[in-house]
Amino acid sequence: MGVVLSDFRPVYLTEPVKQDKLREISIRFAEFVATSNGGSSGRSAANAAAGTIRAAWEKYGVSPKHIDSRRISVLPDTEAAKDPADLDFATIPFTSTFLAKAGGPDIDDRLAIFREHARAALEKMYPDVDDAPGELIHVSTTGYRLPSPVHELVSERGWFHTSVSHCYHQGCYGAFPAVRMAAGSLAAAQSGLARAGGRVDIAHTEICSIHVAPDCLDAEHIICDSLFADGFIRYSAFTDDAFRSWPGRGLEVLRYADTTIPRSLEAMTWRPIVNRFEMTLSIDVPRLIAAHAEEFIGTLLRDAGLDLQSDKGDIIWVIHPGGPAIVDLVGSCLRLSKDQIALSKDALREGGNKSSATVPQIWDRILRDPDIKQGTLVVSLAFGPGLTAAAMVARVV
Amino acid sequence: MGVVLSDFRPVYLTEPVKQDKLREISIRFAEFVATSNGGSSGRSAANAAAGTIRAAWEKYGVSPKHIDSRRISVLPDTEAAKDPADLDFATIPFTSTFLAKAGGPDIDDRLAIFREHARAALEKMYPDVDDAPGELIHVSTTGYRLPSPVHELVSERGWFHTSVSHCYHQGCYGAFPAVRMAAGSLAAAQSGLARAGGRVDIAHTEICSIHVAPDCLDAEHIICDSLFADGFIRYSAFTDDAFRSWPGRGLEVLRYADTTIPRSLEAMTWRPIVNRFEMTLSIDVPRLIAAHAEEFIGTLLRDAGLDLQSDKGDIIWVIHPGGPAIVDLVGSCLRLSKDQIALSKDALREGGNKSSATVPQIWDRILRDPDIKQGTLVVSLAFGPGLTAAAMVARVV
Repeated sequence: MGVVLSDFRPVYLTEPVKQDKLREISIRFAEFVATSNGGSSGRSAANAAAGTIRAAWEKYGVSPKHIDSRRISVLPDTEAAKDPADLDFATIPFTSTFLAKAGGPDIDDRLAIFREHARAALEKMYPDVDDAPGELIHVSTTGYRLPSPVHELVSERGWFHTSVSHCYHQGCYGAFPAVRMAAGSLAAAQSGLARAGGRVDIAHTEICSIHVAPDCLDAEHIICDSLFADGFIRYSAFTDDAFRSWPGRGLEVLRYADTTIPRSLEAMTWRPIVNRFEMTLSIDVPRLIAAHAEEFIGTLLRDAGLDLQSDKGDIIWVIHPGGPAIVDLVGSCLRLSKDQIALSKDALREGGNKSSATVPQIWDRILRDPDIKQGTLVVSLAFGPGLTAAAMVARVV
Repeated sequence: MGVVLSDFRPVYLTEPVKQDKLREISIRFAEFVATSNGGSSGRSAANAAAGTIRAAWEKYGVSPKHIDSRRISVLPDTEAAKDPADLDFATIPFTSTFLAKAGGPDIDDRLAIFREHARAALEKMYPDVDDAPGELIHVSTTGYRLPSPVHELVSERGWFHTSVSHCYHQGCYGAFPAVRMAAGSLAAAQSGLARAGGRVDIAHTEICSIHVAPDCLDAEHIICDSLFADGFIRYSAFTDDAFRSWPGRGLEVLRYADTTIPRSLEAMTWRPIVNRFEMTLSIDVPRLIAAHAEEFIGTLLRDAGLDLQSDKGDIIWVIHPGGPAIVDLVGSCLRLSKDQIALSKDALREGGNKSSATVPQIWDRILRDPDIKQGTLVVSLAFGPGLTAAAMVARVV
């Protein structure tokens, strides 16, 4: 049995906002938070007064050289269209909640916003009320509450026989375990273990913007808050039989693998805290991943009957653009040319890091490109806490 | 390809404590929290003074008639062995953290305790440092942080080629999506999509006790705090080929399914809040589930070539004992005899509701029972938010 990924449908809740404008908005938002909470936090007020906020953002914020624009669900288009100097953070629903405390809304309030935006995205992904998949895998690293937004969708639509699965808290490589789950479900159904539907859907709702920390001026927080964006995409995994009657192009899954990178446990952490999900990120991450990329990808390609050095020129490479450094470093370890990493760098430039939604949005772009021929090999690679590296070999069909 | 579950290994971090003793400990703990925090919470102190705490626990607490004992990881054996009147909550690590505030530790501190206990349980599950599975699926509804306890295990053991999967935030029915994932992985590997290992492990670490709310005296909180327990179990999913050379007995997976129950979204919720994961539970849950049990199980059995009414007498029934009412109600809807639901009621009596670890611990018990013959059919059913019902038909092999 073969498995083909197709019918990619990215959806958007807001327009993209230029990175330099977002920086200015972030600085003014942080100043608003600091001055609003001066009474309870002398440090914050002092930061604002001394221009520390602007200096920190200018020092640590990811440059518009790397990211052109990002989509931020908690900033409505009408507000994003204004001059940042004209923004009144006390009247924008999300930012106004930082008036009462510098740490902003508690985690349950932030996850209530997650629910609202995730539901809106799912409604856009499924405009057809009769479009019930046999299984719907919800992928998110940025929000969990039960019933989940996908429970709500299937319940309200009356899709009572759609099996709901959650692929949560994996990190930026979330698409890879989701594809594994989908392929596994299709294969198990063919073995008679469940009703064979021929199609399993995967829906990513990543709302990184609810976890911002405008009261934190250290490098890690400012890097995260200027790097991550919100991303939403739905796609389907078909059995090759079911795909035959499907009109679109697809990515046939040939082989996947993942690995834990030695001595890297503390390099990246992601955990629920009182008022958000909190990330820590060591500057060693790109180096740790790059050091193991060649062996990991080389082995995967051999398992797929390919050879890294002789075949790499015929392959389209998708390297999760976790940040500006990682794509260059992994590309150089795999001895890829500038052209071969351009697609990944473009994805970062055009939208920032949308966590697990990033790689599927690149897959969508590949399938929409008429210059990419049937049969072209696509090798994708992403990373996350563990550190974990996950990869997949696929072919355009 | 067939899939067989075997090598069940429940592990325990603490001894069971009698339910009536746990009630007395809970009452005294709640009194300690109320009086310790009298300054900041007039309501709590007043509750304690008026004997409201004891009255509420006597009214709402799950009776020793339904639960004989439970295991509570945050209460060390040395403390549990004492007379409750002699307990000094200010010196027990977990309970002492409620001295500073009635709400107890923040969510990140509670999840740090989760990490510690989950790691201890995983170490006990894997005494052999060379026992690396091809994939290790971590199931939990009670704690998530990255790197996960399973990331830590595989990294420290040097199991770099063990694929790590997280099956999180599903609820009490978590074993069912985990088995689906494991069966899917084995089937997909047979299709050549990944290296075929022949064995996928599933490890449940459910630490419900870290989410207690001794400052809440309403029915829902007291029911939860007197019903849930901690549970840990590891087991393996083998391909039938790999199982042939395995010495133990197993459960051959024949068929599984799940369904979302109409108009039941708000009947059960589970979400991270500032200081714990918070559950809400409607008294309608047993009725809502029971109303759909016959159709759901009837359809699953037909898909497996069986008939509910004519075959039910030959089947061993495992009904997740979510609480005292649900097993009776589901049993009566399926027209099962008292004997047929005894196994599920015994599981509740002997250990409380251990969330997703409950059903696998019953499977283990079935396989250890020499009176249960090869070929016996086992039908298992569990529930969780959505509301979701999940079920599996298996056969003792």
